[in-house]
Amino acid sequence: MAARRQIKLSAYLVGTGMHVASWRLPSAKADASIDIDYYRRLAQTAERGKFDIAFLADSLAINEQSHPNILNRYEPITLIAALASSTSRIGVVATASTSYSEPFNFARQFMSVDHISKGRAGWNIVTTRDLSGNTARNFGAAEHYEHSFRYERAAEYLEVVRGLWSSWEDDAFVRDKESGVFFDPSKLHRIYHKGKFFSVEGPLNIGRSPQGHPVFVQAGTSDAGQQFAASVAEVVFSIKYNKEDAQAYYREFKQKVVAAGRAEEDVVILQGISPIIGRTEREAKEKLETLESLITEETGISFLSDYFPGVDFRGVTLDSRAADVGLDRLELSKSDYKKHQPVIARENPTLRQVYSLLTGSFSGDHLVGTPDKIADTLQEWFEDRAADGFMLMAPQQPEGIEEFVDLVVPILQERGLFRTEYEGATLRENLGLKVPENRFAAARAAVRG
Amino acid sequence: MAARRQIKLSAYLVGTGMHVASWRLPSAKADASIDIDYYRRLAQTAERGKFDIAFLADSLAINEQSHPNILNRYEPITLIAALASSTSRIGVVATASTSYSEPFNFARQFMSVDHISKGRAGWNIVTTRDLSGNTARNFGAAEHYEHSFRYERAAEYLEVVRGLWSSWEDDAFVRDKESGVFFDPSKLHRIYHKGKFFSVEGPLNIGRSPQGHPVFVQAGTSDAGQQFAASVAEVVFSIKYNKEDAQAYYREFKQKVVAAGRAEEDVVILQGISPIIGRTEREAKEKLETLESLITEETGISFLSDYFPGVDFRGVTLDSRAADVGLDRLELSKSDYKKHQPVIARENPTLRQVYSLLTGSFSGDHLVGTPDKIADTLQEWFEDRAADGFMLMAPQQPEGIEEFVDLVVPILQERGLFRTEYEGATLRENLGLKVPENRFAAARAAVRG
Repeated sequence: MAARRQIKLSAYLVGTGMHVASWRLPSAKADASIDIDYYRRLAQTAERGKFDIAFLADSLAINEQSHPNILNRYEPITLIAALASSTSRIGVVATASTSYSEPFNFARQFMSVDHISKGRAGWNIVTTRDLSGNTARNFGAAEHYEHSFRYERAAEYLEVVRGLWSSWEDDAFVRDKESGVFFDPSKLHRIYHKGKFFSVEGPLNIGRSPQGHPVFVQAGTSDAGQQFAASVAEVVFSIKYNKEDAQAYYREFKQKVVAAGRAEEDVVILQGISPIIGRTEREAKEKLETLESLITEETGISFLSDYFPGVDFRGVTLDSRAADVGLDRLELSKSDYKKHQPVIARENPTLRQVYSLLTGSFSGDHLVGTPDKIADTLQEWFEDRAADGFMLMAPQQPEGIEEFVDLVVPILQERGLFRTEYEGATLRENLGLKVPENRFAAARAAVRG
Repeated sequence: MAARRQIKLSAYLVGTGMHVASWRLPSAKADASIDIDYYRRLAQTAERGKFDIAFLADSLAINEQSHPNILNRYEPITLIAALASSTSRIGVVATASTSYSEPFNFARQFMSVDHISKGRAGWNIVTTRDLSGNTARNFGAAEHYEHSFRYERAAEYLEVVRGLWSSWEDDAFVRDKESGVFFDPSKLHRIYHKGKFFSVEGPLNIGRSPQGHPVFVQAGTSDAGQQFAASVAEVVFSIKYNKEDAQAYYREFKQKVVAAGRAEEDVVILQGISPIIGRTEREAKEKLETLESLITEETGISFLSDYFPGVDFRGVTLDSRAADVGLDRLELSKSDYKKHQPVIARENPTLRQVYSLLTGSFSGDHLVGTPDKIADTLQEWFEDRAADGFMLMAPQQPEGIEEFVDLVVPILQERGLFRTEYEGATLRENLGLKVPENRFAAARAAVRG
């Protein structure tokens, strides 16, 4: 009998929370983004809630308008190495860009964390959007790589990394003290890669981990991004603000995965959610209002002016509506904006809400309320194939994660929708993903027939 | 009253030990190089012994002749992030190369670990020797950078990294919840670096750590390397096989530091030691003989043939002497070889010993014996200004570190030569090094007069 399909959960850890004003709450630890003990507790809370993943986003440039939680924060790969040491079951996923790094270095670092965590690491692969050009200027590039170029580079980068991760076959290390033979040279491989972007010989100086290699996570939204994700990602995450959009994305993405020659179950689809949990509906709404009220006029208008260079924000306030400055009809080519534009057109939100939306925290009515209401929403989305699970992007942290773990998780568990204990030791085992093949061992097996 | 000068100690952690055959010992954990629990215990043992530093070396390429302990091992930056989480007082130092990485990425990662460890991180800066060309071929370079070019790049790399580490002044983060002001924009800085190798704008998305920034460690032996070290290093380490050579190095290096405009006490000089500890002199000698006997003829001769391409090793065994194949008179231009050549010429060692020497484990008679004898040697070297402290490169691990901590450290402590408790919370405090200035804050102070 096949095990019942269950929800997968990932916690997006980010300082005081996704909401741009969360640091101003009286309870907030305003320096949370650079407090290692705080991050350890967050990860341990998620692990207490049996979450699959503790997730860390990233960016490679900041400016005066950046979210306070990203101005001064840990680099994700080093942070997951530390969090792996303070947890024992939860997966740890770091974001890293293929556009501004060397594949040999990152292949090593990710595999190293996969060993440190005993098979619990994941890599959120990004190609780095760089709307302002700030990132390119931190890496000596005159301007940012254009979009299709980035994905072409990413595909070759992954080819190199997967090759390097096949350097050592699983049984290469003989370690026979008697004979003095440490390894079998026939199971050590060089990749001799020569491509458009990289020339890498190998071998890598680290072998495969207990789960083969880190889990590939991706959140591409553009056509090229989705095509890339369909061919390599094992977890994807997306943010949709209503069930129908999420169902359409789910259906279409699984089709792309199959078209890329993989099985539907090779990819877990998570939907990003920013719930606001209250003992009553009223309390939840008040929490949201408190958060929104903490956005200062200056911060908000300055951000929006920067984001929408052609729009005139003089004479309006954050309580004005999108339509007051024409945002309801605005077309922009930024791929980032395209996912928000339908919500703005449909709901004509306040500029305060537009700001929250663009900075990654927008809860939606279906996710503001009691634990039961939120559990109902998640159950419905999960059962109606809008998602295989959820990325909890709590607007306010640690509370938003603690409340979810203490109040929502038990309901999902009671309903049989979520695990009460981890199924396995590795992240792949918990996510139900297969161990990837070693390229050279597979080729050898194919020859032997 | 000035505190009495005391010995500084660093433990070089490497799998089963520096000795190339250490993995064959009956007690050895042959897979130690990839066992995170093992590394945690090693670091904790060194911390129990009040060591200043747990040190991790590195290389960016391997081949069939590589030391078993480096074939399959952790990447050092991720490993120190993990070890920082399992210790609370000892410094954690990782090796990383300026020749094959982006300064923005490594500046971030090292500062991130410095925050994770609450000011206990260090960076062993290498430019990467690449005698075989293997490293260059892992990074798309047609051939390895020639020597002076590497140091020119390293100097500019450091300039960029130090600039990025000054992005945020120490009091930049106001975090005033009432007014909504998170930081003072006048204390956020861009470096606008444009040089021969790098073009980096900044700012960095992480602020300074409790110790300012990680401690700079260096081990340059060439003229260019020593010049670089004299201008930037705060800890240097070197390996000399007799006191007079070490004294000359110590004296000359401190002169170079002063000539570079710094104070003698701005740099701590460590001498690498590979002691073999026994309850009796006889027991220590037997331990060494056991280790040497575990080198297989095939491994040893294959390594030597590779290292000395012009020398004919046919018809000799590892028990032959250096002079039997002319090694006592051989001149080679490799900077790595130059430090070993006087020992080979003077002592006409067996090829087995030459092999140990070249692979980083050679104990010397003064360091084979009882704990008292070893303590006597260290005291003499320290008091006679051959060193400010020692890098313990134990041939056999964990025993060589455990025995040093349990048997040699107490003697040094009894004699008042070594701390009985850590002096401070950060690595700089324990090493007696000053907190580096923030470049922009210093410039501001200078203007104000």
